[in-house]
Amino acid sequence: MSQQIRTVAVIGCGVIGMSWACLFLAKGLKVIITDPVEGAEDRFRRYLDEAWPSIQLQLGSLQQEPAKNYEFVADIVPRLIEVDFIQENGPERVEFKQELFKTLDQHARPGVVIASSSSGLPSSAFIGQCEHEPGRILIGHPFNPPHLIPLVEVVPHAGTTPAIITTAMAFYRALGKRPVLIRKEVPGFVANRLQAAINAEAYSLISRGVISAEDLDTAVTSGPGLRWGVTGPIVTNALGGGGGADGFNTRLERLGPAIRGWEKDMLEHRFDWSEERLSLLKAEVGNYLTAVNWSELTRQRDSVLLQLLKSKPNL
Amino acid sequence: MSQQIRTVAVIGCGVIGMSWACLFLAKGLKVIITDPVEGAEDRFRRYLDEAWPSIQLQLGSLQQEPAKNYEFVADIVPRLIEVDFIQENGPERVEFKQELFKTLDQHARPGVVIASSSSGLPSSAFIGQCEHEPGRILIGHPFNPPHLIPLVEVVPHAGTTPAIITTAMAFYRALGKRPVLIRKEVPGFVANRLQAAINAEAYSLISRGVISAEDLDTAVTSGPGLRWGVTGPIVTNALGGGGGADGFNTRLERLGPAIRGWEKDMLEHRFDWSEERLSLLKAEVGNYLTAVNWSELTRQRDSVLLQLLKSKPNL
Ligand SMILES: NC(=O)c1ccc[n+]([C@@H]2O[C@H](COP(=O)([O-])OP(=O)(O)OC[C@H]3O[C@@H](n4cnc5c(N)ncnc54)[C@H](O)[C@@H]3O)[C@@H](O)[C@H]2O)c1
Ligand SMILES: NC(=O)c1ccc[n+]([C@@H]2O[C@H](COP(=O)([O-])OP(=O)(O)OC[C@H]3O[C@@H](n4cnc5c(N)ncnc54)[C@H](O)[C@@H]3O)[C@@H](O)[C@H]2O)c1
Repeated sequence: MSQQIRTVAVIGCGVIGMSWACLFLAKGLKVIITDPVEGAEDRFRRYLDEAWPSIQLQLGSLQQEPAKNYEFVADIVPRLIEVDFIQENGPERVEFKQELFKTLDQHARPGVVIASSSSGLPSSAFIGQCEHEPGRILIGHPFNPPHLIPLVEVVPHAGTTPAIITTAMAFYRALGKRPVLIRKEVPGFVANRLQAAINAEAYSLISRGVISAEDLDTAVTSGPGLRWGVTGPIVTNALGGGGGADGFNTRLERLGPAIRGWEKDMLEHRFDWSEERLSLLKAEVGNYLTAVNWSELTRQRDSVLLQLLKSKPNL
Repeated sequence: MSQQIRTVAVIGCGVIGMSWACLFLAKGLKVIITDPVEGAEDRFRRYLDEAWPSIQLQLGSLQQEPAKNYEFVADIVPRLIEVDFIQENGPERVEFKQELFKTLDQHARPGVVIASSSSGLPSSAFIGQCEHEPGRILIGHPFNPPHLIPLVEVVPHAGTTPAIITTAMAFYRALGKRPVLIRKEVPGFVANRLQAAINAEAYSLISRGVISAEDLDTAVTSGPGLRWGVTGPIVTNALGGGGGADGFNTRLERLGPAIRGWEKDMLEHRFDWSEERLSLLKAEVGNYLTAVNWSELTRQRDSVLLQLLKSKPNL
């Protein structure tokens, strides 16, 4: 664990905040939590009890009892003096975050990172009223649930200082996460855009009647999806070109012309969100999803996920 | 195994043909192989020896010695009388396949499926000279290597008969494959288009300087890629919307407007294959790939792949 960071504030303890808090606790940090919703503390205790075993499994640790080193407070402001890192997970509304970040920036100790889990708003959209040290604000966008999925997208705004970026990356890394640096604010950051790209083509093919929704999923889970947990698009391309540093260029040269032909057709027929195509899509998807065994599927997904995470500690 | 199919012809025994032949043998079929290249038979024997253990591992079977029930022949024509299914894996050139399919169609027994592994050419492009029974020709497009990756895209042309489609799907399924039916010939079929979609956005983001090539791969392998071996795009969307048959629509309603914003930006900045962006892309990718430990990576990929395949026999 990063030496200086011992106490973390979790602001907003819903779906994402609860999961972050579990991870911080499992890593031996003290966690101060605030969330105005009624029953927030009870809800968190139940979540922690449920999540604890899989966190321990992933960490290869054997701590039977969930850590208790957390505290719910009604007002975080007077406690910010103790806090070494802030992870914000409140509602995704710009006015809300503007107001909140103004307050946090006003009261956090100098040099303390204030990271927002925001999946949509870049931090430049809500730092306008921060008068003290806006350079310590950035996005630390996790993937749900952050206590299991390693990816964190670190997205600085134009004025975030290099030292703060370094501190945030090192902190997430020390938690066992895999932070990636998004060098420019773009809508959707990176992982959500990559997902959007595959989704858009999936919606297009299904609504064109090229393939059923079920077969579309199979085409991923029994094909390229089997590898994307280990080799990303770039390395996968390079291996397709024979591997090695030249493999990527070899593949581009060999397949480039064909790929450009596919792209042309994809663009021409791209999913346009028209009522007509939406209703074709929803009808096909509806047929498929009524037949899915959800509990079996999520059980299998979680077990494969844990296996994958254990099998590639250093990837 | 499908009751009627006992003997398979493998036409062309390169990268893809060798792998198909191994699988057919492991499933107890007799295989008649033809490939004019010098040393084809030796090359195949070495491939079979190497591939056999992982096939057995995947099948949960314990057959120590590779099957010997195959035969290389210089001319397949006189042997087609014995053959119950043809898998073609020759070079990806339209004139070549036109000529070859004319001959195969002329001599194969009536009702015998002639499947081409072609990854690019739809069969309508090369059946023009088939005068006997063009309705038994279709694409059976595997993913490399077919002896391990379950996906087979079955792509009929407009005149392929329903009975032939059914026979081909049943045959691949009996081999333990996961065939999906592509209902209309589109360039790139389905899985390659989905890969092209994610690749295009990856190339765009890297060449725009939004993220490094290495972090791009991490954004997949530590994020959404961890799930795509179990849940495809549609089910993943539905789970993101709370699961169940309504989850998909819920997610579309909740995130649709944001996604359309990302798509707009993606389209505006899409990778255009210009010299400028290509060279930015290649420079970034080059930096990354020189540092990759390829043997460690492929070892890890193969072991994860086998684990995944064993962990989801019925998905
Ligand atoms: N759900 C996801 O999959 C996901 C993934 C990555 C990032 N995010 C981001 O994380 C953030 C939280 O999303 P979520 O899904 O956990 O939402 P959520 O609605 O589950 O949780 C938000 C919590 O904030 C609390 N809150 C409201 N006002 C507050 C205040 N003044 N101070 C402190 N807490 C307050 C709410 O009571 C609620 O418990 C959002 O910015 C979202 O974009 C969500
Ligand atoms: N390589 C892949 O990843 C991949 C994946 C899916 C499908 N495919 C498709 O599979 C087919 C074969 O591709 P490959 O990668 O195995 O190519 P390859 O070059 O490795 O193999 C082609 C083989 O065909 C042989 N051949 C040439 N003339 C022949 C003839 N008259 N009769 C029989 N064999 C002949 C060649 O000697 C060679 O061994 C192509 O249609 C390709 O699109 C390839």
